Amino acid sequence: MNFISDNAAGAAPEILAALARANDGTASSYGSDEITRRLTEKLSKLFEKDVAVFPVATGTAANALSLATLTPHYGAVFCHDGAHIHVDECGAPEFFSQGAKLVPLQGAHGKITPEGIKAAHARFQKGDVHHVQPSTISISQATELGTSYTPVEVQAIAHLAKAEGMSLHMDGARLANALAFLKCKPADVTWRAGVDVLSFGVTKNGAIAAEAVIFFDPTRAADIVYRRKRAGHLFSKMRFVSAQIEAMLDDGTWLKLAGHANAMAQRLNEGLKALPGFAVPHPVEANEVFVKLPSEAAMKAIKAAGARFFQWEPTTDGRPLIRLVCSWSTREAEVDEFLGAAKRLA
Amino acid sequence: MNFISDNAAGAAPEILAALARANDGTASSYGSDEITRRLTEKLSKLFEKDVAVFPVATGTAANALSLATLTPHYGAVFCHDGAHIHVDECGAPEFFSQGAKLVPLQGAHGKITPEGIKAAHARFQKGDVHHVQPSTISISQATELGTSYTPVEVQAIAHLAKAEGMSLHMDGARLANALAFLKCKPADVTWRAGVDVLSFGVTKNGAIAAEAVIFFDPTRAADIVYRRKRAGHLFSKMRFVSAQIEAMLDDGTWLKLAGHANAMAQRLNEGLKALPGFAVPHPVEANEVFVKLPSEAAMKAIKAAGARFFQWEPTTDGRPLIRLVCSWSTREAEVDEFLGAAKRLA
Amino acid sequence: MNFISDNAAGAAPEILAALARANDGTASSYGSDEITRRLTEKLSKLFEKDVAVFPVATGTAANALSLATLTPHYGAVFCHDGAHIHVDECGAPEFFSQGAKLVPLQGAHGKITPEGIKAAHARFQKGDVHHVQPSTISISQATELGTSYTPVEVQAIAHLAKAEGMSLHMDGARLANALAFLKCKPADVTWRAGVDVLSFGVTKNGAIAAEAVIFFDPTRAADIVYRRKRAGHLFSKMRFVSAQIEAMLDDGTWLKLAGHANAMAQRLNEGLKALPGFAVPHPVEANEVFVKLPSEAAMKAIKAAGARFFQWEPTTDGRPLIRLVCSWSTREAEVDEFLGAAKRLA
Amino acid sequence: MNFISDNAAGAAPEILAALARANDGTASSYGSDEITRRLTEKLSKLFEKDVAVFPVATGTAANALSLATLTPHYGAVFCHDGAHIHVDECGAPEFFSQGAKLVPLQGAHGKITPEGIKAAHARFQKGDVHHVQPSTISISQATELGTSYTPVEVQAIAHLAKAEGMSLHMDGARLANALAFLKCKPADVTWRAGVDVLSFGVTKNGAIAAEAVIFFDPTRAADIVYRRKRAGHLFSKMRFVSAQIEAMLDDGTWLKLAGHANAMAQRLNEGLKALPGFAVPHPVEANEVFVKLPSEAAMKAIKAAGARFFQWEPTTDGRPLIRLVCSWSTREAEVDEFLGAAKRLA
Repeated sequence: MNFISDNAAGAAPEILAALARANDGTASSYGSDEITRRLTEKLSKLFEKDVAVFPVATGTAANALSLATLTPHYGAVFCHDGAHIHVDECGAPEFFSQGAKLVPLQGAHGKITPEGIKAAHARFQKGDVHHVQPSTISISQATELGTSYTPVEVQAIAHLAKAEGMSLHMDGARLANALAFLKCKPADVTWRAGVDVLSFGVTKNGAIAAEAVIFFDPTRAADIVYRRKRAGHLFSKMRFVSAQIEAMLDDGTWLKLAGHANAMAQRLNEGLKALPGFAVPHPVEANEVFVKLPSEAAMKAIKAAGARFFQWEPTTDGRPLIRLVCSWSTREAEVDEFLGAAKRLA
Repeated sequence: MNFISDNAAGAAPEILAALARANDGTASSYGSDEITRRLTEKLSKLFEKDVAVFPVATGTAANALSLATLTPHYGAVFCHDGAHIHVDECGAPEFFSQGAKLVPLQGAHGKITPEGIKAAHARFQKGDVHHVQPSTISISQATELGTSYTPVEVQAIAHLAKAEGMSLHMDGARLANALAFLKCKPADVTWRAGVDVLSFGVTKNGAIAAEAVIFFDPTRAADIVYRRKRAGHLFSKMRFVSAQIEAMLDDGTWLKLAGHANAMAQRLNEGLKALPGFAVPHPVEANEVFVKLPSEAAMKAIKAAGARFFQWEPTTDGRPLIRLVCSWSTREAEVDEFLGAAKRLA
Repeated sequence: MNFISDNAAGAAPEILAALARANDGTASSYGSDEITRRLTEKLSKLFEKDVAVFPVATGTAANALSLATLTPHYGAVFCHDGAHIHVDECGAPEFFSQGAKLVPLQGAHGKITPEGIKAAHARFQKGDVHHVQPSTISISQATELGTSYTPVEVQAIAHLAKAEGMSLHMDGARLANALAFLKCKPADVTWRAGVDVLSFGVTKNGAIAAEAVIFFDPTRAADIVYRRKRAGHLFSKMRFVSAQIEAMLDDGTWLKLAGHANAMAQRLNEGLKALPGFAVPHPVEANEVFVKLPSEAAMKAIKAAGARFFQWEPTTDGRPLIRLVCSWSTREAEVDEFLGAAKRLA
Repeated sequence: MNFISDNAAGAAPEILAALARANDGTASSYGSDEITRRLTEKLSKLFEKDVAVFPVATGTAANALSLATLTPHYGAVFCHDGAHIHVDECGAPEFFSQGAKLVPLQGAHGKITPEGIKAAHARFQKGDVHHVQPSTISISQATELGTSYTPVEVQAIAHLAKAEGMSLHMDGARLANALAFLKCKPADVTWRAGVDVLSFGVTKNGAIAAEAVIFFDPTRAADIVYRRKRAGHLFSKMRFVSAQIEAMLDDGTWLKLAGHANAMAQRLNEGLKALPGFAVPHPVEANEVFVKLPSEAAMKAIKAAGARFFQWEPTTDGRPLIRLVCSWSTREAEVDEFLGAAKRLA
């Protein structure tokens, strides 16, 4: 019963198989290999647009490189107060951008809104040298609270970004989960909705370590290759990073894996919200379920039953809020075991 | 006949096997896993000393994190003019250290000497606020020109470092090759000779992507964990990085692989230096052979025969200088094919 | 009727006289001169403690150097959401610290409180590599809203800082105004209350360009000299910066000038709060008066009468909020002219 | 007999008078004042071209802001091995540019040449992500060794810069001295010869603290205003910085002061080169004279006679090399006293 993170899961069998295939003979290094070339083709096809692709190995690298390429060092990035880039990357965006300012915004269920951005934007005026310059908006898809932005919601934010001369970045560490929920095309919730740059993540979804920065307008990506090398994120044996992403795309593996994780989360959601004393405060629109437990004692009892999970930030009423994350490898039996333990406490 | 780089080789079979073993079930993320714990134990045993180990995935990351931890942003790093950190990492040490200055030194066969360091050191005086502050010396083992520092040579540089209050870093991207040549213990040419921090590389030696920063004095490593995370080099599924390094250490695999690469380089060396019109300007003390060819025409002919290699910097007499790199996967037949092609030109 | 900023005022006569005196003959450069030596003595006497003094020429430089010396690049600085360092320095603290994160806090009348700091602190946990590390608290004295922290208020914040291993910085761009209001000793509201480092400003108070970073524990100032030089803030003809600060201290000039500015602000305060339709939302505890005007039309009328001032951030009820700043050179007649114009509108 | 530096001199009377004039009433802050506006006009007239002017207060700030605006953080700056920016600014260009690499070049009499730049340039190839990218060439006018580039020499370097897509920066901390020697128009040795950005210094020439970054193509200066503010170099009471520069330009004061300093240097040069045992190794083309003394004993004797000067880097023959700097305030009597002391030793 390990619901602590999708990072705790290992690699899907398709990934290991792809690594073995990629290991055939010598290959050009630093991304000049055939697999990396093919990957750009396949991602362009997936997104119905010629994209520029820069594989890296961690989500933090993908996010920080994206933001640093879009944001001058005297710029501001607007994001949710609970965004991974703001709270969980030890200041990586600040490091890569050499000191840009992340402006944290409030917003229900982990989402920011045009209204929230406008209010913050008013305080950092374009052209006033005393203020960091509004440059970028960053949204997470799915969010840190397991919700997903609809295409219409993304469009509204992108509309504001364009109007104010800002860029829009999407942290897609769990993009597959959002897509499996939204059931829209990848293009619909990214560039067609106005996203400029995407951190395309597959590590949480079953790879070993593979992400890609995707520029929907390749002309804006001129200097990210230097930034990536300079940050130590250009892999000499790049074919092994690219092969993981390719394996995800082939036969829709990524959506299959994410769909399974989402289904397990819905199974938790359905089971828990029916129990007296339990509450699910955020819509379950990906592979995460937040649960408010009846009491501290209940939390201890569930732990004692063998469940692993992360306790979220303190709540105002003292009842513990926990996060359950499902992955490609979560089994129905684990979910049912958890629900059984919860039922005994309800 | 691919001698272009040890980066062009794939992964040794031991590495893929280790990844498959590591993929068993869930594991704690971000380096709290059992394999990473074991790795520190094994490296401590290998080096006959309790060491602090920080796995990363690229040599540039290992070097830049090492240097940034040892060097204040207003500090100077003394290194060879041809050092990888100075010429081939797009300024990664400057980025990670936030602007420290690399002071390039001349030196025969890719090695720096105490005399060269002293002369440069005299120009950047300790305590004078107008000068960047001498902080770190960095040497490559084996060097960019395929030579290896003896323990006595390292000691002499370390002696100067200590006398001047500087730290000594070793870029060990090809440490195994140097050790296979020197036939000394890992400790003898590292901490016992005065090295403070080592970039311990196994990628070129047959891994997919695995390196480790090793602090021989763990008390000096206090903040590298934040630097690593902040640079996007803390892997969520760390077990897969650590497993590669562990597989290298088990049964002496790393020395076996490096020994093979060295042997192939020696076979090239022996064959080429006997040929009229060919010259090998640097001692072959690892897995690289530099060869001065008779003429541009000879270089073209060798290429036409199917050999791949890197042409080095221009020479004063116009005869092309090329670099041949052997790897764990280089076959005797390839070497002999190259020698055959050369013989026909001599 | 120029109430736009104390920056709009020129230099007090004492300052120009000091520059002329300082210009006698040659002097050692870069701070080795006699005036700079004397300044440290006089500031040590003023603060009743041996202090380390680093003169610079702008408040932004003083703040950013202070914060960068106290805060690692992976650190967090807690400050008021409206703090000058957060909103008005174009990210200078981020630049000098190379990417530390400023965490903005709410708080009435421009002041932060231990409770507010605690809540924010809980989200960035010490020792967790995913989070920037809580390092520094910064308060402004007087605040951006013209209020002053009492010694007891500073002590409470300092107590929390010490308990959590954080440093306490004070932005004293208007310290003289706060002291003229509080009527306590400089030590009482700085180091005796727990402040570690002070930006000691005299530019707004009547100098041309002179500030000083003051470390109350000189052992913590080891590397600021390199930071200052590296940032271009070490003046070759330092005597002319130091002479301005010295002139302020001699004969209590700084408190005399600040006392005058405060008195003018109080005169505005007394006059305005008596008028129907006018409101002064923040206590006037320095040289700034915030005034809520009856209407947009009233604001236009006052401008038409010749008054210059800064319109503050939008209010919820639509009535304009303006800021009036008095300086050493503000004349009673100007104040009365403004009050007269206001009275006609009431 | 103070020849230690032109920084040891005070301010010329014209400067103090200008400060007093500038102190009349209130003025817009942060560079929106009338004097700063006028300054841009006067500099545009002086340079026979509309220029963009950014006053700052130190030469290090002017140089570092110039270089950072011209050079991406992954860029390389080619400069003389003894350049102030490389040796004497504690890494300020690296700090402001966030880690660009200064590539030091050898060259006689403190000057770099197109040949030297070409050789270094060949090692850092454009478009190769492994290398920092050649971006900027920086020359000092006059040089650190008291020589001046002729317009033809500047043109040759600029020609190479343009051909390779690089920018050309001139460190003009002693531009007035060079112009007083070259007797050409300011435009002839700057933009007409191909200089893109100039650090225009007047501090050494008799101001208190005043320099300006001058962009000859204002369209390239888009973001320096943010960089300047962010670095703490935007002065609130800017009028006092601008007034110093304006005072220098009025009535040709800057050339008069520099001409005097140069004349004093020539007087030293003429007197010293005639003395047996004394040598002047570099042409005297500004206000500095380098002198090789007969012996250590001679150096001590001259010091004992009351002369102050800076001993330069060690020489190969052991005879001390000293630097004598003349300023606007150097008196003929001082020069003659020095020559008298030298004559007694010859």
